[in-house]
Amino acid sequence: MKNVDVDALFIGPKSENRDYFKEMMNFLVDEHLFWRRDFHPNDPEYIKIRERYSEDFMLTQERMTETLHELSSRLKESSMPWASPRYLGHMNSDTLAVANLAYLTTILYNPNNVAYEASPVTTALEIEAGKQLAGMLGYDPGKSWGHITCDGTVANYEALWLARNIKTIPLAIKEVKPERVDGKSEWELLNIPVGECLDMLDVLKKEGLFEAVKDRSVRVTGVDRNTCGKFLVPQSKHYSWVKAADIFGIGQENMVPIQVDEHFRMDLKHLKQVIDGFVADKIPIMGVVAVVGTTEEGAVDHVDLIAEMLEEYERDDVSWYFHIDAAYGGYARSIFLDKDGIFMEYDELIKSLHSEKLVHRDINWPKLPVYSAFRAIPKSNSVTIDPHKMGYVPYAAGAIVIRDKRILDLISYFAAYVFEKEQDNPMLLGSYILEGSKPGATAAAVWASHKAVPLNVSGYGRIIARSVEGAARLYHSIKKMGEFEIEGIPFCIHPLVRPDFNIVMFAFNEADNTNLERMNDLNRKIYEKCSYVSGPVYQDDFITSKTSLDAETYGEAPLPFIEQFGMSKDEWERVKTVYLLRSCVLTPYLARTSTYVEYWGRLIDSMKKIITEISLEEAAQVI
Amino acid sequence: MKNVDVDALFIGPKSENRDYFKEMMNFLVDEHLFWRRDFHPNDPEYIKIRERYSEDFMLTQERMTETLHELSSRLKESSMPWASPRYLGHMNSDTLAVANLAYLTTILYNPNNVAYEASPVTTALEIEAGKQLAGMLGYDPGKSWGHITCDGTVANYEALWLARNIKTIPLAIKEVKPERVDGKSEWELLNIPVGECLDMLDVLKKEGLFEAVKDRSVRVTGVDRNTCGKFLVPQSKHYSWVKAADIFGIGQENMVPIQVDEHFRMDLKHLKQVIDGFVADKIPIMGVVAVVGTTEEGAVDHVDLIAEMLEEYERDDVSWYFHIDAAYGGYARSIFLDKDGIFMEYDELIKSLHSEKLVHRDINWPKLPVYSAFRAIPKSNSVTIDPHKMGYVPYAAGAIVIRDKRILDLISYFAAYVFEKEQDNPMLLGSYILEGSKPGATAAAVWASHKAVPLNVSGYGRIIARSVEGAARLYHSIKKMGEFEIEGIPFCIHPLVRPDFNIVMFAFNEADNTNLERMNDLNRKIYEKCSYVSGPVYQDDFITSKTSLDAETYGEAPLPFIEQFGMSKDEWERVKTVYLLRSCVLTPYLARTSTYVEYWGRLIDSMKKIITEISLEEAAQVI
Repeated sequence: MKNVDVDALFIGPKSENRDYFKEMMNFLVDEHLFWRRDFHPNDPEYIKIRERYSEDFMLTQERMTETLHELSSRLKESSMPWASPRYLGHMNSDTLAVANLAYLTTILYNPNNVAYEASPVTTALEIEAGKQLAGMLGYDPGKSWGHITCDGTVANYEALWLARNIKTIPLAIKEVKPERVDGKSEWELLNIPVGECLDMLDVLKKEGLFEAVKDRSVRVTGVDRNTCGKFLVPQSKHYSWVKAADIFGIGQENMVPIQVDEHFRMDLKHLKQVIDGFVADKIPIMGVVAVVGTTEEGAVDHVDLIAEMLEEYERDDVSWYFHIDAAYGGYARSIFLDKDGIFMEYDELIKSLHSEKLVHRDINWPKLPVYSAFRAIPKSNSVTIDPHKMGYVPYAAGAIVIRDKRILDLISYFAAYVFEKEQDNPMLLGSYILEGSKPGATAAAVWASHKAVPLNVSGYGRIIARSVEGAARLYHSIKKMGEFEIEGIPFCIHPLVRPDFNIVMFAFNEADNTNLERMNDLNRKIYEKCSYVSGPVYQDDFITSKTSLDAETYGEAPLPFIEQFGMSKDEWERVKTVYLLRSCVLTPYLARTSTYVEYWGRLIDSMKKIITEISLEEAAQVI
Repeated sequence: MKNVDVDALFIGPKSENRDYFKEMMNFLVDEHLFWRRDFHPNDPEYIKIRERYSEDFMLTQERMTETLHELSSRLKESSMPWASPRYLGHMNSDTLAVANLAYLTTILYNPNNVAYEASPVTTALEIEAGKQLAGMLGYDPGKSWGHITCDGTVANYEALWLARNIKTIPLAIKEVKPERVDGKSEWELLNIPVGECLDMLDVLKKEGLFEAVKDRSVRVTGVDRNTCGKFLVPQSKHYSWVKAADIFGIGQENMVPIQVDEHFRMDLKHLKQVIDGFVADKIPIMGVVAVVGTTEEGAVDHVDLIAEMLEEYERDDVSWYFHIDAAYGGYARSIFLDKDGIFMEYDELIKSLHSEKLVHRDINWPKLPVYSAFRAIPKSNSVTIDPHKMGYVPYAAGAIVIRDKRILDLISYFAAYVFEKEQDNPMLLGSYILEGSKPGATAAAVWASHKAVPLNVSGYGRIIARSVEGAARLYHSIKKMGEFEIEGIPFCIHPLVRPDFNIVMFAFNEADNTNLERMNDLNRKIYEKCSYVSGPVYQDDFITSKTSLDAETYGEAPLPFIEQFGMSKDEWERVKTVYLLRSCVLTPYLARTSTYVEYWGRLIDSMKKIITEISLEEAAQVI
């Protein structure tokens, strides 16, 4: 299979590929319209030709047309121009043409993946897409399972649901069949490894006791907050975890935040310290979450070292559920897979990235810790991965992939035997997942993307390498720029941290300003001019996003950043928050040298113009 | 405003309105493509013309095209022909053209309603759509709030989330500010009415204590299954409620099923008996759910009488959260609203339905209990209502509407003040709802439908009246048919129950057979021939769905039905389950006499043919 040509995959910022897009769309819509006609060709037309010329009919069409004109006008006036490289804010860019076309055409057939009966085609596509993701993430395709969720938040919910129900099931086993867990204390029961639990449940299934156990488990009895234990997440976590703790009845005080280090990765020393504290007090640990691609910084946690830590603790009979929130970063594992789907050795990877010019030599990506993290992903129990982020699929498509599909029985609405007989009983997805009715169209979009763009270095890897390269270029330009002048006044710009992935955070400052509040204020004003805050963005030269890092969440991690601006630890402790501009570089159009150089020149000119405007406005206010 | 012409609103079973659809779609897609070009018109094209003729580029396009051809072929081969009146199974039919067009065009702009910043247009449309639904359901538009969920299941989850968090909040108040609930016992605290709770919280907000209370509530401390109480749902409930009890940590044993009566409506005697039992034992009742349009039978619970019951109990200081699951039936409230949105008096309604020929006089719909139930909907605390069911919008769009929006603070991720300042802080929807990222496209589809098709008798009411009329015709035809002959052998057909709404359930039997198992077997075989079970349905004459009613869930409610076939109570108690064919008549094309008569003739001929086939197959097996 040849490599994909990334430029053929998108509509393009200037609708460069519009002819192909329109031709395919017309064809697919015609296919649908004539499919309707061909269903029992002799059936009568229910809407008669003469009716179409009645006044009521035409008035109704007018009303529909006016509604659609209003919608289209509003969309054009205020929508975010994701497709343009001038947009470098949230996790958005152009999306795959094939995904859009698959989505659009499938909506017309309107399948509902809640049940096979309502989606004979797209339920199969969803299961296929899940298998494809499982393969990319390194799970055993025969044992694993995955499906499309409405978003990463719901995928995280399902992970917590699985963790809660599997980790507490030994208590129910003890109640129903005490001999099975002979003499084990509550502490020991709550520390049985996930795989061991599933094996025990297999035996109970054979004995016909599984349903009885389920009936004494948390799903039937309700949560007892005293036995759930703690759920450990890095401070850099997505806020869906906080919502999850509320929803699943675990309680937010049992969701324990772990500090991040200077790379904004989970601090393993702190993690160990927290775990040791709980172990000493015999408080069980329900789960640990590692993040691959934090939503703020794009940081990649040390998945490999966290997995090793679990192995070590398990030798001492302490165990927990291990989930990876790779909603953002998951698809980047495609870069590391050769055309046969084999995870490349580090040297081989670097050689291939350089020789195929996917990532420039001087950019030196990925660093070994990032490589090792991606390699270790299959050591987790489950992974959240969002097609609508680095899968370049339109909203809303998240996904969860599970290493050992036997665990589904812990959340399934049906008795266990149904899933085992999957071959005979087509999937009633609604019984194994959190959602009910769900669009087959998103599943089709994800499936079509994976089919047209292989989940390895020949396909997705090429798109995502462009994104990583674009981010690295931006980081280096900012780093190199350092100080510059605007109308004779010296300013400076510094990046927060070398990106693990594709997010660049940075801030401007007057070169001689050492007041952090003033610096924050400048960047807030820049953001407002580069966002919806100052009105519709259609005339904006540059659109970005922002974030604030505060001492409460991030401790001293932001200190090295503000020190670049000549500010001290005292200033950090005084202000305790730093405001940054944040650019997720998903766009595939900043990877080429010629394009990038022109772009950067234009960008920095815009920024200078904006800072000048701000200075003038401030001066006017003083007067 | 003139009445809509229903026939102009759909693409049509034979794509009758294809010219309009294609013209609008092309226009809307062009609008998008040129909007991309017009964003900074001077920006360079990033995909160069010469590249399009490179081999890699063309190969990539080929791969995309092949993928889309495969998708389209698979969709055409096995999709369900919802648009044809030959499909009378699940809650599906043709969907509104304006909804499809709005959905398709909005996907191209790819807004994400999780945050205003990612959806400046469609977040506003979602809020508007929520207000429109609140208005239709009779809530005070100034105090209520609604939003689009990915489905009815998630809307039900949010209702349970609200119920759990508001009903247990007095325990947290007692902890933080005991004087506020001076001397109240736990039982009394757990029986404070929802409105009273919200007023107390308002005072605590003013005192600056609200966040402290939230921090001692279930969301932070986790669920204590001993204080949650019971959640009462009719036996006819959707299975999402069983999943919800697991997810929210309440436990399925605390979700108490209430029997249904011979109309498949919640049995109020049993409800009262269960409540009295819990009250006697001082076990609190967290919530009661009434269903408007059960998913199996389309039955409408006595919302008015259930609301009255709550008022009565509140006089004795017993109170609960009252939710209505109107996922299926909610939109039918539009029939009862005149053009100004006023809920019509019964006589006026009947007069208007007959004089405008929306529902034929001899069909005698709605009966008073159904009318009274719809009238009382605004007495609930919240309502689930699915645009992708009777809103005729493509998947996946559910919705929840909440009577008193102050309650959102109980589930919100943010501190309370943010929501109050909605005017200044554009909605960050992700903080007030269960989901995270969510498609702006579905919100646009719902909004556009409500805009083009008013939510009263001049708009949606006309579509839904056609559906009700079609179902009533089918019911009467079945009832009238009774006995008939196939090749000299007498058969019979009977309907389950006169539909409250638009679902018709029925079964065939050999006229002289009094063995329920044999009858069940016949109908199962008919279903298999009229569904995906016998392979792709594209050649099928008729496609339907099925259900089984069993004694465990339905008690004796199905008895009158099997008695029509000459079967006794003994036979019911022996077999304990009856298999039925189930037709949701959403199609708007069976309301006209001429169309319907032709259709019924064709349908019954197909059924006779199928029964003959089954007889021949049985005979062949015997030989």
